[in-house]
Amino acid sequence: MLRRRRVFRTRGSAASLAILEPGSDPGYGDDARMPKLRFNATVSLDGYVAGPRQSLENPLGEGGLGLHDWAFATRTFRATHGMDGGETGLDDDHVAAWNTKIGATIMGRNMFGPVRGSWGDAAWTGWWGDDPPFHTPVFVLTHYRRRPLELQGGTTFHFVTDGIEAALERALEAAGGLDVSIGGGAETAQQYLRARLIDELEVHVVPAFLGAGSRLFENLDGGPAGYECVGLVSSPAVAHYTYIRNGQ
Amino acid sequence: MLRRRRVFRTRGSAASLAILEPGSDPGYGDDARMPKLRFNATVSLDGYVAGPRQSLENPLGEGGLGLHDWAFATRTFRATHGMDGGETGLDDDHVAAWNTKIGATIMGRNMFGPVRGSWGDAAWTGWWGDDPPFHTPVFVLTHYRRRPLELQGGTTFHFVTDGIEAALERALEAAGGLDVSIGGGAETAQQYLRARLIDELEVHVVPAFLGAGSRLFENLDGGPAGYECVGLVSSPAVAHYTYIRNGQ
Repeated sequence: MLRRRRVFRTRGSAASLAILEPGSDPGYGDDARMPKLRFNATVSLDGYVAGPRQSLENPLGEGGLGLHDWAFATRTFRATHGMDGGETGLDDDHVAAWNTKIGATIMGRNMFGPVRGSWGDAAWTGWWGDDPPFHTPVFVLTHYRRRPLELQGGTTFHFVTDGIEAALERALEAAGGLDVSIGGGAETAQQYLRARLIDELEVHVVPAFLGAGSRLFENLDGGPAGYECVGLVSSPAVAHYTYIRNGQ
Repeated sequence: MLRRRRVFRTRGSAASLAILEPGSDPGYGDDARMPKLRFNATVSLDGYVAGPRQSLENPLGEGGLGLHDWAFATRTFRATHGMDGGETGLDDDHVAAWNTKIGATIMGRNMFGPVRGSWGDAAWTGWWGDDPPFHTPVFVLTHYRRRPLELQGGTTFHFVTDGIEAALERALEAAGGLDVSIGGGAETAQQYLRARLIDELEVHVVPAFLGAGSRLFENLDGGPAGYECVGLVSSPAVAHYTYIRNGQ
């Protein structure tokens, strides 16, 4: 279902993304829009999505939160978190595009929380409080069954114990024709990249060095394979590399 | 000797580099110009400076040569290799800046050639033919003594057996007030980064994925530490991240 029927060759036309309206479709042609699996991540220049020594107090590890300063500064991020103001322009366009047309989210258990093993009394309800910023069904990959957890604002966490493809199937069904986003973390993204299930990938590379932590691009069996860059643009804070899966 | 006396805080002023004349000084202030140790490298988005399965026929490994397509396309690269034509603009400006004011080069033995152990009959004279593109003294880090090798066009290879600091000292002396460039490869750059001897660092990140090979940012003891980004600009082919060593 996620296979595209037609792909334009757009390498080198980096400007195409810069002029996209949020939510418009980067290069998929004239066909009726098909739901996609999308993933975007911010990495340090040395390749880390999270820093060393992750902990309950520091879920992104040392230096990890700072990777996202470029996004925190945008109007769209601030608006989706109940704040006024923020920057508009290139970076905001990219944040906005990634927040549009998402009907469901998939995440790894480590991203959902620090609990390991069985869920116990199910007291952990995620990092995000009573009204998480997803506003969609969220499918959490886990080996341990748990009842769905409905929070405010349209976010319901579902716990999926039968693998990444089952999670994707359920997420697509829940998304009702919209796209599915992989929320993270690195290990979950790597599983979907190895399976070549991600249709659209954007990597935001910031100039920071973390020195250690979780790398996005490893454990990929020599990949990621089969992705074509369709856009490279930058602000002074971050460069955005956008890929689509090619037909091979 | 390489310590700067004054550093301007220029983070966020990415435009500053874009308008630099080739060879001008990115943010070092008004002091008399001091010789610097400079290093620039092109890396894939997954962090590799060379691909897997390096060999005599394929010294940069599979996919490694393609990392440099952005540079090969520039007018400056073509001119320095005896060819007409080529692109001008942002990428050419960066190639030109890195070819300017270099009075000596340092490289690792792996970059000089595939010979291991003692030099034997000294038949190996580098990858670059009779007229290498350096046109300066080149100091090759090695554990095996060898007489200097003088080739055409001003390139003489000197073989340094007493470590990176000795090589730097000799290179600075030979450079006669100009800068010293680290030619590569990754392991040599890592040694100088660990020792915090590199004054100016530029990383050209291209959208390619190599999947395996030599990573630039590893074996750095949690670093590189102490570098400040002073420029981030991009063309559709490559993003240029420029750093200077800060005073800490």
